[in-house]
Amino acid sequence: MGTLLIQNAQVVTMNLAREVVSGGVYAVDGVIKAVGQTPKSAEVVIDARGQVVIPGLVQGHIHLCQTLFRGMADDLELLDWLRHRIWPLEAAHTPESVYYSALLGAAELLLGGTTTILDMETVRHTGEAFRAVEEIGLRATMGKCLMDHPNSHPGLLEETDQSLAESVALLERWHGASNGRLRYCFAPRFVVSCSEDLLREVARLAEQYQVMVHTHAAENRAEIELVEAERGTRNVLYLDRLGLTGPQVALAHCIWVNEAELEVLAATQTRVLHCPSCNLKLASGVAPVPRMLELGIPVAIGADGAPANNNLDGFLEMRLAALIQKPWHGPRAMPAHQVFELATLGGARALGLAESIGSIEVGKRADLVVVDLNQLHTAPAGRGDVIARLVYAARGSDVRHVVVDGRLVVQDGRLLTVSEREILSGAERALAAVLGRAALR
Amino acid sequence: MGTLLIQNAQVVTMNLAREVVSGGVYAVDGVIKAVGQTPKSAEVVIDARGQVVIPGLVQGHIHLCQTLFRGMADDLELLDWLRHRIWPLEAAHTPESVYYSALLGAAELLLGGTTTILDMETVRHTGEAFRAVEEIGLRATMGKCLMDHPNSHPGLLEETDQSLAESVALLERWHGASNGRLRYCFAPRFVVSCSEDLLREVARLAEQYQVMVHTHAAENRAEIELVEAERGTRNVLYLDRLGLTGPQVALAHCIWVNEAELEVLAATQTRVLHCPSCNLKLASGVAPVPRMLELGIPVAIGADGAPANNNLDGFLEMRLAALIQKPWHGPRAMPAHQVFELATLGGARALGLAESIGSIEVGKRADLVVVDLNQLHTAPAGRGDVIARLVYAARGSDVRHVVVDGRLVVQDGRLLTVSEREILSGAERALAAVLGRAALR
Repeated sequence: MGTLLIQNAQVVTMNLAREVVSGGVYAVDGVIKAVGQTPKSAEVVIDARGQVVIPGLVQGHIHLCQTLFRGMADDLELLDWLRHRIWPLEAAHTPESVYYSALLGAAELLLGGTTTILDMETVRHTGEAFRAVEEIGLRATMGKCLMDHPNSHPGLLEETDQSLAESVALLERWHGASNGRLRYCFAPRFVVSCSEDLLREVARLAEQYQVMVHTHAAENRAEIELVEAERGTRNVLYLDRLGLTGPQVALAHCIWVNEAELEVLAATQTRVLHCPSCNLKLASGVAPVPRMLELGIPVAIGADGAPANNNLDGFLEMRLAALIQKPWHGPRAMPAHQVFELATLGGARALGLAESIGSIEVGKRADLVVVDLNQLHTAPAGRGDVIARLVYAARGSDVRHVVVDGRLVVQDGRLLTVSEREILSGAERALAAVLGRAALR
Repeated sequence: MGTLLIQNAQVVTMNLAREVVSGGVYAVDGVIKAVGQTPKSAEVVIDARGQVVIPGLVQGHIHLCQTLFRGMADDLELLDWLRHRIWPLEAAHTPESVYYSALLGAAELLLGGTTTILDMETVRHTGEAFRAVEEIGLRATMGKCLMDHPNSHPGLLEETDQSLAESVALLERWHGASNGRLRYCFAPRFVVSCSEDLLREVARLAEQYQVMVHTHAAENRAEIELVEAERGTRNVLYLDRLGLTGPQVALAHCIWVNEAELEVLAATQTRVLHCPSCNLKLASGVAPVPRMLELGIPVAIGADGAPANNNLDGFLEMRLAALIQKPWHGPRAMPAHQVFELATLGGARALGLAESIGSIEVGKRADLVVVDLNQLHTAPAGRGDVIARLVYAARGSDVRHVVVDGRLVVQDGRLLTVSEREILSGAERALAAVLGRAALR
């Protein structure tokens, strides 16, 4: 990969002292070697005069396989959204449509400054999503979705053993690929669509292979009632009983959790993936994130799938993660610095990646985003705090350059790794094929 | 002004049948003469192939004079936000700083597809804001802020008669200027900072001159308690008693209104200006907009001032106006089409401008915005509803061209009427001067 230099910038390091320094960032073979004072030349040089360098944003909950379905499931509640739109559409996916859906989502993420995701795919063709992400250059932990309970959509229902065997095969093929940029995770959809045998086996395999488990929990009132009716206890307590809590387990949403469940999450250091836009759009509610942070629960932010948002813009999610708590917890709840941390170093910690990403420090991997705040909608700079400007005023389209693992993947707002035109035309073609196959009401 | 043609587009008309038609929009001297099928040439021709034309967005509540203070009052509650930051900063405004603040805000608005605003300035130099808006080409109804109660910040407190006399002088100078594009309104800040004499006199003068009254009401719990303690009744009922309700009165926020107040608003057809971002950011609450719409209260959407948001992006406000109601009223509450209407024709109606703007119809003024939805973050088009795509996925930076009153003011995402570089440098210079004068804690 060679040497890369971003120079003349303001660097928001997110180091221990949370320093913002003037100067540059210098990386060799994907590893940060200098911050602030740097060598004067490199094989790739980016002049970021007057611009801001931040750690690449981390999004903890994404479904790349749903990007094609943006705008096809608006104004619906979670279980209707799944049963009448998302599941029939996922069931109609082809290898090509999974590939283009991932490419489209990954492109939007990179262009908007997100460099790392934790992702859940659909039940089939997960290798195609890995292939797309490998090509485009995003850092991702991804898993094939697991659904073996009769409650699942018939077009997605699989045999327990077969779905786990396919998971292990994907794990063996992809976990650690691309210099460790790609990782595998086990991804049971949610309790409702998984048998207890499957969930227990996922806990065992995740321990055996030392990989993450990525699932949904306590997103919606109807969901937790269903879980309680069928499994006899509250969602998080049930997962805990099966061994599906702990630092390697990441639970998306956790809106409808009681204090006992919060204490379990804290005691086990289970990760929570907070998706503010999606939680509003599907009428799910507002997750008790200030309380989670008070209890020391590691929280990451995520956009969820495109049809539940309808963007994958990390800046939009930061702003909303701050805003939606304030009417209930006061204007100082979730201040800009706290939210920015959840979207960078905190997100990395939640994904078990804080040793290698999440801040701009010597020795970490070079996941870097250059943001241009010299714009009318972010002006004036005045005495404004740069992190508050990033959280409250900036948007994904302010991102100029993006580096992942030392490789320049976005330059001057254009994707370098895959043709944007090819992604757009491939996505439309693939969606048409899916719609031709899908049994939508 | 001559002839203007936008061609090869998809036109979201917002006419009575809510038609979306293929073709163009043709205007002569600022008036729309053809929609769909149009003449083939004009003095100004915009090729909008594959793009969408919408009525210019209307924002019902803006403070252009605060744009300079973006990022200088984050994570504070309304009354602290006003007393410790906004009032001292407004008190330090110079003619030049009011001018650049308005220019910066108006530029951001136009570039983001907002063509019409209802605005409240500060107590001084309102003529400078009019001058900026006249130059840049925005359609605006603006008023000098009125504050004559001892509760007001000393640096902004004025004598009742003097402030009303200045208002009338501004009205006579600016109301109807620029071919009717500029209008004056009376703008008492809110009950807390206005004497009863002032408020009664505003009601009388607004009736006499047939102009709007633009004020704030029931934004915050502490505010309504103060009003009730000092004036003996609830905020909206008090305004109603003074004659400050009715179709010419527009009240920003109205979050803390009870059913009796809602009934007064409905019966009098008082306008409500809903500011979802600001209401979250200042921890004020969520306005009961679905109930207001059920009662037939005319509602417009607005971004409020930049330090309470921190953007002036009409697309962001549409998306959030839809999202924040859903957890409380269900996923079908505030669907995309309803929100889009509030931001266009409904906003125009709230501002008493529905005869001339708010939809793309023959005979109306040509306020037109061309939006490019052929982007990664809005793709794929598929069978997606164009209005849902505009509300949920588009953002201000997707705006390509903007026409106000038949004049092309933004082309290819660049402002044509004033130099963006000059606005940015003028704004920084003016802010430095204000900060040098302001007595901030």
